Amino acid sequence: MTEEIYRHIPEIKKIKSGIAHIFIKHTSASLTINENADPSVRIDMETHFNNMIPENMPYYEHDTEGSDDMPAHLKSVIIGSSISIPITNGKFNLGTWQGIYLCEHRNYGGSRNIVITIMGDE
Amino acid sequence: MTEEIYRHIPEIKKIKSGIAHIFIKHTSASLTINENADPSVRIDMETHFNNMIPENMPYYEHDTEGSDDMPAHLKSVIIGSSISIPITNGKFNLGTWQGIYLCEHRNYGGSRNIVITIMGDE
Amino acid sequence: MTEEIYRHIPEIKKIKSGIAHIFIKHTSASLTINENADPSVRIDMETHFNNMIPENMPYYEHDTEGSDDMPAHLKSVIIGSSISIPITNGKFNLGTWQGIYLCEHRNYGGSRNIVITIMGDE
Repeated sequence: MTEEIYRHIPEIKKIKSGIAHIFIKHTSASLTINENADPSVRIDMETHFNNMIPENMPYYEHDTEGSDDMPAHLKSVIIGSSISIPITNGKFNLGTWQGIYLCEHRNYGGSRNIVITIMGDE
Repeated sequence: MTEEIYRHIPEIKKIKSGIAHIFIKHTSASLTINENADPSVRIDMETHFNNMIPENMPYYEHDTEGSDDMPAHLKSVIIGSSISIPITNGKFNLGTWQGIYLCEHRNYGGSRNIVITIMGDE
Repeated sequence: MTEEIYRHIPEIKKIKSGIAHIFIKHTSASLTINENADPSVRIDMETHFNNMIPENMPYYEHDTEGSDDMPAHLKSVIIGSSISIPITNGKFNLGTWQGIYLCEHRNYGGSRNIVITIMGDE
């Protein structure tokens, strides 16, 4: 996702020191930063979250939209709806292995809306 | 909580583009954004967190303030002590179903203190 | 960690109202705010996270760097790679019991790099 953001927000290049705030306008998807090199990290992350927050727990009352409804809300609370990344000399100041993840928690999620706010000194 | 914040911080209305940072000054309560329409989401969230982080785990050493003491610290770490929300044209730029949750993790919590910081261009 | 940050970033003292953003450039360590008085909180936090996210789960595929590799990524996603703290009159506006935690999730982690960004009005 990192490259997509650079393309859509060319203003990042002008910031000498600042912060990019990225916010997802949904309660069943989330944003995080994680290891971006080995695709197996994403697979294990999904498996472990499904294990920690399973579908069809007998105590779920909220299931109007199906068995993945409440688990999606729980995952989005735990992972979070926004990330903030430092900008240094026109670039995200991320570690070598860090990349931005958009986590989809519905089994059949639609398109997702994001708001990006850039703050800092040019 | 969203309406309460608008009432206490009328400065939000003046911000064209910015961020509201909301911070809770406690280690046994937390802030998050979640589905705000169906009250059963709150019930399921509490039940699932109590399941994932139970009271009276035999390995807890920190229980000076009772069996809900350590679980409250763990929940506050997982959910988080602050949220940041984009402001666009004088309003929180939240999704249709998103609302602000103040999560109380003690069984008998007292009043809670919050610091709200508004940044952005008028 | 709080005292160390004051020492390295004397600019905090000049800020009347603002935010400190602290970001860790790694995917196997994290930052959070928690109870800073009783050292048993740290012990219980580590024990509970190891319980919730164990090593050697049969479904982990990502284990190139050992059995603590994938659990470290999962813990860092759940706890988070950044915190934001309000600054009021030249000081972090933290609650009485709040302190900054740098959480190391590798069994033998090396040194860690952090980026601190200060925003606000002098």
